[in-house]
Amino acid sequence: MKREEVEALKEKAPWKDRKTVVFLSDFGYSDGAVSAMHGVADQVDRTLKLEDLTHEIPQFNIWEASYRLIQTVEYWAPGTVFVCVVDPGVGSDRESVAVLLSTGHIIVTPDNGTLSHVSKGIGIVERRRISETTNRLKDSQKSYTFYGRDVYAYTGARLASGIISFDEVGPLLDNQVVMLEMNDPTVENGKITGSIDILDTRYGSIWTNISDTLFSDAGFKYGDRIRVDIEYRDRTVYGAVLPFCKNFTQVEKGESLIYVNSLLDVAIAVNQGSFTDLYGVKTGEGWRISFKRC
Amino acid sequence: MKREEVEALKEKAPWKDRKTVVFLSDFGYSDGAVSAMHGVADQVDRTLKLEDLTHEIPQFNIWEASYRLIQTVEYWAPGTVFVCVVDPGVGSDRESVAVLLSTGHIIVTPDNGTLSHVSKGIGIVERRRISETTNRLKDSQKSYTFYGRDVYAYTGARLASGIISFDEVGPLLDNQVVMLEMNDPTVENGKITGSIDILDTRYGSIWTNISDTLFSDAGFKYGDRIRVDIEYRDRTVYGAVLPFCKNFTQVEKGESLIYVNSLLDVAIAVNQGSFTDLYGVKTGEGWRISFKRC
Amino acid sequence: MKREEVEALKEKAPWKDRKTVVFLSDFGYSDGAVSAMHGVADQVDRTLKLEDLTHEIPQFNIWEASYRLIQTVEYWAPGTVFVCVVDPGVGSDRESVAVLLSTGHIIVTPDNGTLSHVSKGIGIVERRRISETTNRLKDSQKSYTFYGRDVYAYTGARLASGIISFDEVGPLLDNQVVMLEMNDPTVENGKITGSIDILDTRYGSIWTNISDTLFSDAGFKYGDRIRVDIEYRDRTVYGAVLPFCKNFTQVEKGESLIYVNSLLDVAIAVNQGSFTDLYGVKTGEGWRISFKRC
Repeated sequence: MKREEVEALKEKAPWKDRKTVVFLSDFGYSDGAVSAMHGVADQVDRTLKLEDLTHEIPQFNIWEASYRLIQTVEYWAPGTVFVCVVDPGVGSDRESVAVLLSTGHIIVTPDNGTLSHVSKGIGIVERRRISETTNRLKDSQKSYTFYGRDVYAYTGARLASGIISFDEVGPLLDNQVVMLEMNDPTVENGKITGSIDILDTRYGSIWTNISDTLFSDAGFKYGDRIRVDIEYRDRTVYGAVLPFCKNFTQVEKGESLIYVNSLLDVAIAVNQGSFTDLYGVKTGEGWRISFKRC
Repeated sequence: MKREEVEALKEKAPWKDRKTVVFLSDFGYSDGAVSAMHGVADQVDRTLKLEDLTHEIPQFNIWEASYRLIQTVEYWAPGTVFVCVVDPGVGSDRESVAVLLSTGHIIVTPDNGTLSHVSKGIGIVERRRISETTNRLKDSQKSYTFYGRDVYAYTGARLASGIISFDEVGPLLDNQVVMLEMNDPTVENGKITGSIDILDTRYGSIWTNISDTLFSDAGFKYGDRIRVDIEYRDRTVYGAVLPFCKNFTQVEKGESLIYVNSLLDVAIAVNQGSFTDLYGVKTGEGWRISFKRC
Repeated sequence: MKREEVEALKEKAPWKDRKTVVFLSDFGYSDGAVSAMHGVADQVDRTLKLEDLTHEIPQFNIWEASYRLIQTVEYWAPGTVFVCVVDPGVGSDRESVAVLLSTGHIIVTPDNGTLSHVSKGIGIVERRRISETTNRLKDSQKSYTFYGRDVYAYTGARLASGIISFDEVGPLLDNQVVMLEMNDPTVENGKITGSIDILDTRYGSIWTNISDTLFSDAGFKYGDRIRVDIEYRDRTVYGAVLPFCKNFTQVEKGESLIYVNSLLDVAIAVNQGSFTDLYGVKTGEGWRISFKRC
C-alpha cells in the first residue's frame, strides 16, 4: 500500500464508525480478568460495542492466538479494533504496539508473534509503539502484570471511540513485526507437502497450511481418492487413501475424509468422529502432511 | 393461528424493533467460529444486539439444542431472532430454513430436529427455505462446511435488521418441521410416568417432561411424600420415597427432593449435591421415571 | 458517607446514564440459564448493555463470588448494576437485596455473604430488601428455584433502565450485610502473615490478602529476596527464599517469584508454570502465608 493510501485510510478512520472492540486472550472465563477489560473499555466510551473472539487460547500459546486472528479478523467490518493479549513476557521489554492492517482493521497487542499470520496473510501498513505516558489507565502505574486491562483494552477503546487518532498511539515504527516460523507448503512431482497449522479440537479435525487454490492447481479435485501421509519428524504416524469431499456426509459416519475448511484450506476429519483422537495427530514443529495421487 | 393473523404478524415485523440476534451452537468457545458469526452479523448492521444462548451443546446433539431453545426463547422479547447451528449434516440435503413462531420469534437453523420442542410447545406459523442465491455471505460460495457463518448468521442478521422481509428468506414451505421422537407422560391409577428430558449437569439434577399442572391435576401437592422409580429399559436404577418441596433448603444438605424447575416441570435434585452423580441416572431413550402416592 | 451525600448520589442516579447490567453466577455456560437472564433484562429495556463478569464460579462458592466482585466492580463505571447469583439457599429466608456502594455501583444479590469484600473494601451506603410483589417477572410466581431470572435480573434491569428508582426496590434495611469471615494480615517483628484469598487457577498463582502498601510499609522492596512460608493448620507445606519482582520475566522460566498482582496485593507465581500444581497449595480456612526478611 502506498504511503498516501495509508494516510487516506487513517484520515477515513473506519474504526470511528464501527466503535467496536473485539477481545482475545488466554485468560479463560472463570475469573474477573475479561470483565475488567470490558469495564475499562466501557468507561472510555459507553457506546462501544464490546465483543470477544475467544479467551480460551491455551496459556502462552502465541501461535494459536495468531491463527485465531487470521481466522476471524476479516469477518468483522473494516475498522474493527482487536485487543489481543497472550503475553508471557508481560512487563518485560517486548514492544506494546498497535498495527493498522491494509483492510482497515486495527490490532492492539504485545508484539511477540501474535501478528505473524495477519502480517503475512493481510499485511500491516503502519505500526506504532504504545506510549504509556498517555495511553495507560489512570492510576494503574503500580500494576505491572495486567497490561491487557491497563494498556491494551484502554488504548483499543480510545482508538475505537475516536478519542485518540492512530498517530496518537505513540512513535512510528517500521512494519516488521516479530514473526513466528511459518513454512510454505511445497509441491514436487505432484505431491504437496505442508504443515498442520492447528487442530480443530472440538471436532477433532486437522487444518493444514495448504490452500484450496494450491490444491486444485496441483490437479486435485472433488471426488478424487488421494494418498495422505502424516509424519512426525522421521516417524510415519498415519497413512491412508482418503476421498476428497465437499462435505462430511459424503462418507459414512466414522469414516475419514479430506475437505476444504471454512478458511478455504485443506483439512482432514472423521464424519461425526475425531481424527486427532483416533490417530494421535498433533500440531506444531516437526509435523508434516503430504498429499499425492494414487 | 389464522392466515390473516400470520400476515398481520409479518406486517408488524417485531424483529425490526428488537434488532437482536441470539446465537446457539455446538461450536464451543475455544476457537474463532462464534466470533466469525458475530462479525458477519455485525457487518450486516452495526446496530444489531448480538447475544448468545450457549455454544456448549454437546457436538451433534440435536435434542439438547431443541431443548435449550424451548428453555430460553420466550424469555426474550417477541421478534428476537435465534440462529441455531447444530448441524452434523452440514452441506448435505437437510433443509436450511427460517421459521416464524406464533409468539413472533424467528429461528434460523438447519431443519434437522432442532425445532421439535418449539414446534410442539409454541407453534410454528410459517416456514421458509433459505434461498442461498440471495441469502449467503458474499464470496463464500467455495465454503461448504460453515453454514453457520455463511448462511445462518448472515440471514438471521438481515432479518433482524429489516434488510429482508420474512418472505424474502425464500420459498414458502409447509409448517411440518423434522420432529425428534417426543413421548407424552401418561397417568394411570394415580401413577404418572414420564421421560427424563435433560440433565442439569452443573447441579446434577434431572428434569422430566411432566408439567407441574399435570402433577397437581394428578393430586400431588407440596409437602407430599411421593414414591419415585427410575428405570432404564427393564432395569430399576433408583427407587425411593421423596418429599415434594418448594425449594432445596426444605431438606438437609445431601438429601434428595422433588421440585418444580424453572420451566415449571417436575424435577429431582440433591440439596447442594448431584443426583446424577450419586445414582448414575442419565437422559434419553429407554429412561423412564414414575411418581405415585405411597 | 453522610446521609445527604447518599441522597445526592441517588438523586444523580448514575445507573440511568450507564444502562449497563453485568451478570455473575455459578450457572456455567452450557445451558440456557444465563441467556434467560439476559433475555429478561433485554425485555425490560432493549437499550441496556448486557455484560458478564463470569458464570464459572464453582457451585455455591460464595467466597469466590464475593472476591470476583471486588476484583472487577471498580473497573466498571460508577452506576453499573451488577446482578450476582450464587444462591445455595434459593427460595429460603435469606434476604434478596439491592445495595448501593459509595462509588455509585449497585449490586443486586441474595445477601448471603457475596457482599463481604465490597462491604469491607468499598463500602455500602444503602441496602434495600427487594419487594417481590412489584419486582418480580410477570407470571413467574410458580417458579421458586430461579430467582436469578425471575427477581434479580428483572430488578437489576429495571434499576439500570430507570424504570424504578433505588427507593422503589423495597423497604430500607441497615447497611450490615451478611459477612464471611475475613482475617486481616498481621505484622510482627518484621514478619507479615496473611491468608491465601484465592487461586488464579488458570495460571496457577496464589493471591494473598496482603496489600502492596502493607508490604512496602513493612520495608520489603523490589529486588529483595524474602523468606516465604506457607502452612496448612500446623503443617508446613512450602518454605523457600524468593525474589520480589516487578514482572515474571525477571526470573527464569519455571522459577518462583513474589509479585504484586493486578489488584495490588502480594502474590506468588512460577514464571510460565503453575505454583499451585507444583506445591499443592490451596485456598480457604486454615491456610496461612508469611513473609520475612532473611
